[in-house]
Amino acid sequence: MSDGESGSGTAKSGRTGRRPGNADTRLAILDAARVRFAGTGFDKTSIRAIAADADVDPALVHHYFGNKQQLFAAAVDFPVDPDTTLLAVDAAPLDELGQTIVRAVVTVWDSPAGPGIVAMVRSIFAGGDQNLARSFLLQVVLERVRVRIATPADDGRARVSLAAAQMVGVLTARKIIALEPLASMPIDLVVDAVGPVIQRYLTGDIDTGSW
Amino acid sequence: MSDGESGSGTAKSGRTGRRPGNADTRLAILDAARVRFAGTGFDKTSIRAIAADADVDPALVHHYFGNKQQLFAAAVDFPVDPDTTLLAVDAAPLDELGQTIVRAVVTVWDSPAGPGIVAMVRSIFAGGDQNLARSFLLQVVLERVRVRIATPADDGRARVSLAAAQMVGVLTARKIIALEPLASMPIDLVVDAVGPVIQRYLTGDIDTGSW
Repeated sequence: MSDGESGSGTAKSGRTGRRPGNADTRLAILDAARVRFAGTGFDKTSIRAIAADADVDPALVHHYFGNKQQLFAAAVDFPVDPDTTLLAVDAAPLDELGQTIVRAVVTVWDSPAGPGIVAMVRSIFAGGDQNLARSFLLQVVLERVRVRIATPADDGRARVSLAAAQMVGVLTARKIIALEPLASMPIDLVVDAVGPVIQRYLTGDIDTGSW
Repeated sequence: MSDGESGSGTAKSGRTGRRPGNADTRLAILDAARVRFAGTGFDKTSIRAIAADADVDPALVHHYFGNKQQLFAAAVDFPVDPDTTLLAVDAAPLDELGQTIVRAVVTVWDSPAGPGIVAMVRSIFAGGDQNLARSFLLQVVLERVRVRIATPADDGRARVSLAAAQMVGVLTARKIIALEPLASMPIDLVVDAVGPVIQRYLTGDIDTGSW
C-alpha cells in the first residue's frame, strides 16, 4: 500500500450498493478474479471488469492487490510475489538468463515459501486444463521470460516450454521425489550444472521455429 | 518361457509343502518380491530368498519371471520390459548416450505403454520413500546408466540424477501438464533439443564430483 493510493481504500457506498472495504470485499474481488482469469485468461481480463463483477470501485482492487499480475498471484494463492524472481529475469543480460533464472527459482524453492510452491506444483500435476495456477505460470511467469527472448524469426514459445520443463524436472527431483544427490546439491553447483542448459534452451542454437 | 527352462515349471511338492505352479503361486512370488525389494533393495535381494519366502523352488521364479530385474519390473507392474530401452543404452557409443536415451524413452512414452508409465510416475510423485516403482527406477534403470559413465574420479551419481531430472521434466511437460508447444513437439525435435543436454549431464564438463 503506497501513500499515493491510500485514499482509494475507502469504498464507494452510493446508490450502486458497492461493498465497503472489508474482508468480504477482498474475498469477493478474489472470487471475481478467479472466474475472469479462468474464463478469458490474463491478457483479456481487466481490473475494471473484475471490479464490476465484485461490485466495487476499480481503485479498491488496486488498493488491495496492486496490479493485475499481483491480483492474479493472489487469486491463485501464489506463495510468493512473483516479481521477486521476475524482476531479476527482467534485469539480467540476455546471455546470463540461464544462470539468473536457475539461481532465482531455486532460491525461492529453498526459502520458507518453498513448501507452498511444491503444493501448488502438485495441484498442477493433479489438475486439468482449468487449473488456475497453471494458467498463472504460463500466462504471467513464462510469458515474462518469452518476451525477453522473442525475435521476428522465433516467438520463443518452444524455447520457454523446454526451459520450463527442465525447471519442473529439477523442482520435482529436489522437492517431490528426493532424487539424490541432486536433491541435496548445493545451489551453486545446481546453477553451474543447470544454468547453461536453460541458457541453451532460451538463446542457443536449437531448431524450434520450423514447425 | 524358453524350452531349456520349461522343466522347472513344475513346482516341487514334497515334504516342504511347496506350492504348485499356478496363479496363486505367481501372486505369492510377487508378494514376496515386493517385501524383499522394499526391505533390502535390488542388490541385496536374491531370487533364492524370494523363492524361500514364497515357499517355491527358485527355478520356478526364473521360469515365471525371468531374471531378477524382470521380477522387480513385474513386482512394480512396470508397464514395459525395461530392457527395451536399457539394451539400447548398453549398446550406444558413450558419445551418443544423450540422443539414444531421449529417443528410446520418448518412444516408450508415445507408445501404448505411455499411459501406464504416466500413471506410475504419478504414483511416484504421490508416494513416499517406500514407493517401490521409485526404487525400481533408481536401483535398476538409473543404475544401468550410471555404470556406463562411472569413472574412478566420478561415480556418476550426480550426473545420472541431473539427467533423470531432465527426463522427468520432459515427461511431465509432455504428458502431465501438457505444456505447449513441447507437449506436441515431434520426437526428432525433442531429441535434437534435449539429447545434447542429457549428453552434457552424463559425460560433459560439469563439476559433480567435488562434494
